[in-house]
Amino acid sequence: MSKMIHIVEVGLRDGLQRETVPIPTADKIRMIDRLTAAGIRQIQVTSFVHPKLVPQMADAEAVCAGIQRRPDVRYSALVLNAKGVERAHAAGITDIDLSISASDAHGRKNANMGLQEAVAHFAEMVALARSYGMRVRGGIQCAFGYYVDDVTPDLVLELARQHLALGVDSLALADSTGMANPAQIRAMLASVLPLAGDVPVVLHLHDTRGMGLANVLAAVEAGCATFDTAFGGMGGCNFIEGAAGNVPTEDTVNMLHALGYTTGVDVEQVAQVSRMLAGLLGRPLPGKLYQLTEERHNTG
Amino acid sequence: MSKMIHIVEVGLRDGLQRETVPIPTADKIRMIDRLTAAGIRQIQVTSFVHPKLVPQMADAEAVCAGIQRRPDVRYSALVLNAKGVERAHAAGITDIDLSISASDAHGRKNANMGLQEAVAHFAEMVALARSYGMRVRGGIQCAFGYYVDDVTPDLVLELARQHLALGVDSLALADSTGMANPAQIRAMLASVLPLAGDVPVVLHLHDTRGMGLANVLAAVEAGCATFDTAFGGMGGCNFIEGAAGNVPTEDTVNMLHALGYTTGVDVEQVAQVSRMLAGLLGRPLPGKLYQLTEERHNTG
Repeated sequence: MSKMIHIVEVGLRDGLQRETVPIPTADKIRMIDRLTAAGIRQIQVTSFVHPKLVPQMADAEAVCAGIQRRPDVRYSALVLNAKGVERAHAAGITDIDLSISASDAHGRKNANMGLQEAVAHFAEMVALARSYGMRVRGGIQCAFGYYVDDVTPDLVLELARQHLALGVDSLALADSTGMANPAQIRAMLASVLPLAGDVPVVLHLHDTRGMGLANVLAAVEAGCATFDTAFGGMGGCNFIEGAAGNVPTEDTVNMLHALGYTTGVDVEQVAQVSRMLAGLLGRPLPGKLYQLTEERHNTG
Repeated sequence: MSKMIHIVEVGLRDGLQRETVPIPTADKIRMIDRLTAAGIRQIQVTSFVHPKLVPQMADAEAVCAGIQRRPDVRYSALVLNAKGVERAHAAGITDIDLSISASDAHGRKNANMGLQEAVAHFAEMVALARSYGMRVRGGIQCAFGYYVDDVTPDLVLELARQHLALGVDSLALADSTGMANPAQIRAMLASVLPLAGDVPVVLHLHDTRGMGLANVLAAVEAGCATFDTAFGGMGGCNFIEGAAGNVPTEDTVNMLHALGYTTGVDVEQVAQVSRMLAGLLGRPLPGKLYQLTEERHNTG
């Protein structure tokens, strides 16, 4: 029996959030349904944020209403505030993604909140989501550094402890800037995994410096069993200069399969969704594997 | 003292060989001189092949004549036949790259020779190059597989043994199709490194499926100390469908430095050469790091 690695598809949220070409709601729904048909069992479908902030996510309710809900799939959404929690709950979302940035400087730009304020706000949001009976994923953005050098491993561990003390259902470490390297990933996981115990630890990696899959390799061999990925390698934060996409779902899954892990995800079916999005955007996506025909996926 | 990893820059040859935009000879010379100024100590500057086959390399002699030879740099060239060896020698090249494809099918397409014929021809070329007092690097293309499933690890090991028996000065394993995965890299190196003994083993990796740096990570930790890389991530063989570039020099060096290895190569200076080439070609290159400003190279 090969080990199961869990893939959380975030392309519909992180992947699309800064695309200025509006993607029709029907196409978003089609992509979500095709991704779950491809074996994706956890998918972040949208974010409930102010449409002026992220116009691409203005149709969050319509997306949630349109998808074919599979009982074996967890559909999650990112929210920033109480209004978002309420909207997500009303839209039938059961899994909420809340996060704070370990970087005070990044948090002020991205969420208009310093770290101290963000910590207090996060606790309130967790309580609110739990009052609705929602599962909460607690994230730490910029967990591997920000351009202003204000993140230390000790700070990240302290934030992880706080998240876990609040009873989050999973803990996500985001390399929002793509600054992490394999040695850093190993060191962080060696501290965080024992701290988290039975609470799943999720790595959210960006391929900004080309180290995305090297970091996945280091992480999976260090015991991390859940990864955020985005089909076609889409993604990036508007408040991080030079930000590049998430690790591509199909490239990640392909490597994991080559290494003998199981994901339950069909590489070619995900690649087809990437080709669909490349067609909608009229430009190539950062991912590599979707550019190859199916008979070329084989990695020897 | 951190371990030294040797970088062989192949962007001028593998990187440019299928570019249809002719790059002026003076620009090639400038790129080579800037790369050696950046700390590159081994550089494949061109190939001596028939100009009808690879028009971009028609100026091989002029390139060799124009570069500023540094005494601490090894300038190499790829050749396919006796004429190439003679031209390279006449041009003052002291390091010759000879190779055969482990895939009979690929060899027939790429070099118009089956494997048996290629093995005999390779031995003749090694003898010829040695008669000129040249150092010989013996390469094995498609060492990790080809689309026609005709490559096995045993075959690659047998070819490696033959190369070593002929007295090659270094042994290069090329993942020409980009099909290698980290587990395969480890298994191959566990067999090849003891076989090679004191003869340096070079890995030549393509990032066709996004696993390039993951493979570098696996290889460097398995004891491989020399890598072919191409500035900007250029490269690919015309006879391999979907071929993508080599692992980018600056991205590879940046990761190696982050992991605590020494290369002697300045990341930003290499990135500047990539920016120069992107300007000449009028399109972005596959590499990631050159797209970031210097203060964003830091990997935390």
